[in-house]
Amino acid sequence: MSFRNFKMVSYVVYGRGSFNQLDEILAPQRKGDAPMVFLLDHFFEGKPLAGRIPLRGKDKLIFADVTYEPKTTQVDALAAQLKEEFGTISGVIGIGGGSVMDLAKAVSLMMTNPGSSADYQGWDLVKVPGVYKAGIPTLSGTGAEVSRTTVLTGPTRKLGMNSDFTPFDQIVLDPELTKDAPANQRFYTGMDCYIHCIESLQGTYINEFSKSYGEKALQLCQEIYVHRNSWDEECDDKLMMASYAGGMSIAYSQVGVAHAVSYGLSYLLGTKHGIGNCIVMNHLEEYYPEGVKEFKFMVEKNNIDIPKGICSGLTDEQFDTMINVSMGMKPLWENALGKNWEQIMTREKLRTLYEKL
Amino acid sequence: MSFRNFKMVSYVVYGRGSFNQLDEILAPQRKGDAPMVFLLDHFFEGKPLAGRIPLRGKDKLIFADVTYEPKTTQVDALAAQLKEEFGTISGVIGIGGGSVMDLAKAVSLMMTNPGSSADYQGWDLVKVPGVYKAGIPTLSGTGAEVSRTTVLTGPTRKLGMNSDFTPFDQIVLDPELTKDAPANQRFYTGMDCYIHCIESLQGTYINEFSKSYGEKALQLCQEIYVHRNSWDEECDDKLMMASYAGGMSIAYSQVGVAHAVSYGLSYLLGTKHGIGNCIVMNHLEEYYPEGVKEFKFMVEKNNIDIPKGICSGLTDEQFDTMINVSMGMKPLWENALGKNWEQIMTREKLRTLYEKL
Repeated sequence: MSFRNFKMVSYVVYGRGSFNQLDEILAPQRKGDAPMVFLLDHFFEGKPLAGRIPLRGKDKLIFADVTYEPKTTQVDALAAQLKEEFGTISGVIGIGGGSVMDLAKAVSLMMTNPGSSADYQGWDLVKVPGVYKAGIPTLSGTGAEVSRTTVLTGPTRKLGMNSDFTPFDQIVLDPELTKDAPANQRFYTGMDCYIHCIESLQGTYINEFSKSYGEKALQLCQEIYVHRNSWDEECDDKLMMASYAGGMSIAYSQVGVAHAVSYGLSYLLGTKHGIGNCIVMNHLEEYYPEGVKEFKFMVEKNNIDIPKGICSGLTDEQFDTMINVSMGMKPLWENALGKNWEQIMTREKLRTLYEKL
Repeated sequence: MSFRNFKMVSYVVYGRGSFNQLDEILAPQRKGDAPMVFLLDHFFEGKPLAGRIPLRGKDKLIFADVTYEPKTTQVDALAAQLKEEFGTISGVIGIGGGSVMDLAKAVSLMMTNPGSSADYQGWDLVKVPGVYKAGIPTLSGTGAEVSRTTVLTGPTRKLGMNSDFTPFDQIVLDPELTKDAPANQRFYTGMDCYIHCIESLQGTYINEFSKSYGEKALQLCQEIYVHRNSWDEECDDKLMMASYAGGMSIAYSQVGVAHAVSYGLSYLLGTKHGIGNCIVMNHLEEYYPEGVKEFKFMVEKNNIDIPKGICSGLTDEQFDTMINVSMGMKPLWENALGKNWEQIMTREKLRTLYEKL
C-alpha cells in the first residue's frame, strides 16, 4: 500500500486519577483465573504507586529493571518464566517509561508467538496477536504508548517488533503519575518528544496527518519548556498530551538525524534513548538550525546537564560499530536528508560527528 | 467510571489517493462470499467516484438519499432489505458526509442487533458488535468519522446510538474526495467543526486531551477560512484533519448552545446539521462573543449565504416542540452554561432566540 493503514490503540482513557479506574477497566479482560501481570518500573519499588496496583487472585507484580533498555533476552526470559509459572495469562500491564511499556508489549507478543523475540525484530514479522496488553506511562515523551513498535536490543541489532499486533489494547493516561519524575529524567524524555517533532516536521516524509499532530506536540513542548518559568500540574497534563500527539505524528513521518546517531550510542554504550537524543541534538546545528537553537535555550533555562565527551577514548573498531548501526537506519536518514542521503552523510562525516559527542 | 474510556477507530489511513487502496483494505475483511455493501451519497450518482468503488462478487452499491438526515425507519428498512437479500454480509462501507457515515454505522449495528434502531437511541444500549464497517468522508467537518455515535431521527427524538460498538473499524481519509463539494455545503460542514471547537473549548467539561485536539482543529479552520484567500488542495488536506481532530476532541468535551438549539430546528424543520448550526451561531454573541465575531468574518470573507427568518410563521406549538427537543439536550447545556443552566436558559429566553433565527 502507498499509504500506511495505521493501527490505533483500541481504548484511551485520559484524566488525573484515571489510574484508579484500572481495576474496573481490566475486569472484562480477565480470562477465568488466568492472572494479569503488572510490569512496574523498578523506580517505584517501595513507593506508593506499587500499593495501588489492583491485584486480584493469582495476579503478579514484577518490578522491571530498566537500568538498560529492554533486550530480546530479557523479553524471552520473562515470557518463559510466565509460561512456566501460569501456562497462560490474561494480560500484561506495563507501568513506567518507554522501556517498561515496550517490554510489556514485547512480552505480550511472546506469550503467543513461538521462538525468540529476536526473530521478530523488523517490520510485520509478528503474525499472531499477543495476550491483552495495556500501557500506563509514568514518564511523558517517548510516544511508546501509541507506537506500533517495541524497541529491543537484540544479538545483532537494536530494532523494534514493528507490527499491527504491537499497539496496546488500552492506554491509561493519568498525568498524576508523572509528578514525581526526577527533573533531569523528565527533561530528557520530554526532549525525546520535542526532537521527534523537529525531525518529523522537517523531514521529507511528512503529510498533513502527521503534521497536525507534530505541530501540536511541538507547541505543547514549547509552552512547557520555553514559555513557563516553573513546573506545575498543567505541565504534566500538557506533556502527557505532547507525548501522545508526538507518537501519533510518527504514523506518516519518521525521525531523523538525532535518532539515527543516537541509536549507535545506545547500541555500543547503552546510552538511554532520551539522554542519547539530547547528547546528539546538541551538535546538529547544521541539520536543524532553529530546533537546535531552541533546544539549547530550553537546556539552559531548565538548568539541565547534557553529558559531553562520551565518545572520547573509543577505538576505531568501536566507532565503526556505531557508524554501522547508525547507517543501517536508512528510513531515518532518507527522511532527514532525502533520497541521496548517502552522498551527504558519509562514514567520515558521521565519525566526525560521533567524535564531537 | 469518572473518566470515559474512549473507544478509538481501529484503523486509519490518510493520504491523497488512499481511496485507491480500498480493495486491498477490504480483502481480509471479506467473509466467504458474503458481500460488502457500499452506501454512497446520492450526490455521486453518475459521477466518477461511483465507478471507482471496488465491487467484487455479490457486492452491492446503494446510493443513499440523504436529502434528509438519517431516520431510524430508513436504517431499519435498509438492514431488513440486506438481511432479506443476503442473509449475512461482510460489511458496510459509508462513503459521503456525516449522514451517510452515520447511516452506515447504524445499518452495521442493525445487521446483528434485534428490533428497531429506535430501541438503541441513547447511551450504551447496543450490546452486540455490528458487522465490519468503514467510513470514507467526502465532506470534512462533521467528525462522524471518529465519533462513537450515529445521530438518528427517531419516532420521538433525534439521538444517537452512542456505544463502544458504534465507531468504525476503518476510516479512509482521502482529501481528494472532497474536492468537488459545493462551496456553500463545504462551508456549512466546515463550520460544524469550527463551532464544535468553540463550544467545546469554552465549555465546562474540557480537559487537556480534548483541549489539545480542539485547539488544533480550531487553528486548522482558521488557517483555511480566516487566513487564506482562495481554496486549494492544501485546504482540503487541512480541513480533513480539522474534522478528525474536532471529532476526537469530543472524547472529553461536549458541544454547546449552537448544537442544542440547532437540534430543535433539525427535529421540527428537518434543517440539516451543518447549516442549522450556522443559522444559530449567527445569533450567539451573548454566549460566544469572539467565536461569533470570527464566524461572521468567515461568512463574509467566503461569500456565504446564511438563511434568515426560518422560524417566522411558526405556531406556538411548533416553538414548544423545538424548545422541548433543545431543552432535552442536558449535557450540552450543562457544558455551555454550567450546572445551573436551567436558571440561565429559560424557555422564554430560548423562544426569543428561536424567533430571531
